[in-house]
Amino acid sequence: MLVATTIEEVKANVRQWKKDGLKIGLVPTMGYLHEGHASLISRARGECDKVIVSDFVNPIQFGPKEDLATYPRDFDADCKLCEGLGADLIFHPEPSEMYSPDFHSYVGVDTLSAGLCGKSRPIHFNGVCTVVSKLFNITEADKAYFGQKDAQQLAIVKRMVRDLNFNIEIVGCPIIREEDGLAKSSRNTYLSDDARAKATILHKALTKGEEMVRAGETDAIKVRTEITNIIESEPLAKIDYVEVVDLGELQQCDVIDGPILTAVAVYIDNVRLIDNFIVE
Amino acid sequence: MLVATTIEEVKANVRQWKKDGLKIGLVPTMGYLHEGHASLISRARGECDKVIVSDFVNPIQFGPKEDLATYPRDFDADCKLCEGLGADLIFHPEPSEMYSPDFHSYVGVDTLSAGLCGKSRPIHFNGVCTVVSKLFNITEADKAYFGQKDAQQLAIVKRMVRDLNFNIEIVGCPIIREEDGLAKSSRNTYLSDDARAKATILHKALTKGEEMVRAGETDAIKVRTEITNIIESEPLAKIDYVEVVDLGELQQCDVIDGPILTAVAVYIDNVRLIDNFIVE
Repeated sequence: MLVATTIEEVKANVRQWKKDGLKIGLVPTMGYLHEGHASLISRARGECDKVIVSDFVNPIQFGPKEDLATYPRDFDADCKLCEGLGADLIFHPEPSEMYSPDFHSYVGVDTLSAGLCGKSRPIHFNGVCTVVSKLFNITEADKAYFGQKDAQQLAIVKRMVRDLNFNIEIVGCPIIREEDGLAKSSRNTYLSDDARAKATILHKALTKGEEMVRAGETDAIKVRTEITNIIESEPLAKIDYVEVVDLGELQQCDVIDGPILTAVAVYIDNVRLIDNFIVE
Repeated sequence: MLVATTIEEVKANVRQWKKDGLKIGLVPTMGYLHEGHASLISRARGECDKVIVSDFVNPIQFGPKEDLATYPRDFDADCKLCEGLGADLIFHPEPSEMYSPDFHSYVGVDTLSAGLCGKSRPIHFNGVCTVVSKLFNITEADKAYFGQKDAQQLAIVKRMVRDLNFNIEIVGCPIIREEDGLAKSSRNTYLSDDARAKATILHKALTKGEEMVRAGETDAIKVRTEITNIIESEPLAKIDYVEVVDLGELQQCDVIDGPILTAVAVYIDNVRLIDNFIVE
């Protein structure tokens, strides 16, 4: 497996692969890889000739009061995992390689970025769209793999690709969970043992909500209220949002009459966790 | 010459050309082509295997009070000119082909977009960057050709390409002028005979300013004042801006101690004209 720290190294390999007519898959990550990432890499491995994993904690998607400095990192472990899964190249640049001091460009998606996580993280999705655009251009990937755990991110990246005519297919992959239902996340490592045990409340609440919708409940407010009540039954939980939105524009809906995303963001003992379900 | 009105038609051709290993040149235009555009197309013809001219009056780069509705159009003449110059494909989409009703994405460049034309046209360069990004992705061009008449646009597009790692080389081409020095522009057609005669004041003023700089004048304010005075000597002229900026960040400078752009925007009888000179 190649380890590249510069954009030019990646581009040089990509140019050769393109010349050889190979299909390139990209898995963009912020590192500290877990089984969720592994599922994306394995999927890419199965569908593409060459698999690139980017491993970069993207500073511009963190707000000033967020956890950029403390975000967990373990590049050696990431390399082992990627190599074990048959990735061809891991791209691990320094922030200065991605953002020169006179970097001024940005990419974003209106409307879809306004609600859900965008409300409490106003610059987050601009940072995501900008780095993802860079990665798409650097890797010239044919397919890129994103987890559904970041459902809003997935919807935004898909829209961006469609709107800006990127020559890439975005593949959304299912949420990977711990045995007790907690969605895998690099940030789970922040949780104390007690908080870790309590964090299952997100999945419990969403499971109940999903059951209601699948059983035919069309009142989104009832679904939201039920989820909210379950989460609030856990004293350690502090809700950022519980939302039922349409899957197209991610706008809050009162009546469920089409595909919906139900998403929550909850602080468990000051660790912000997200989770969701989709009913098509 | 191929005439394409849909993105898919362009992409289908591009895919084949890429497969054949051909080098693609793109000349993005808003149509109503003149000798300025012709110089770009000829340059592309000389340097690339396939030349694509986009001919699209991009609605999102016009402000609400600007001349989108009246912007001059003559697609038949454009086709003849492009064919005569050996272009391979002209891309002439409807606005709805480029922007679906749920289009929400944008690309922009901070700082460089704030001054000069950006001051009176706050959404303009976002619109330019967005459409140019789309065109780069649609055409997968190896080179794109822009006129130096739109010097700020050229600087912004270059920065965007560098920042976002687009796989394209931006080629800036010299300003093409009428015999009396007026920079060629599709908007010159708006000028009455009288205003057309008076419009030469821009070039006269800039020529004087350039002479000063080349003679060693380092006081940017003196240069700006001289240009301003000359333009103001023409009663029909109303200055939008006269600026001397550094060529990197396009920030106003008082002392000329490196490469500079001197740019003006002037209304002649309500027609907004721009012109500039660069001293490297």
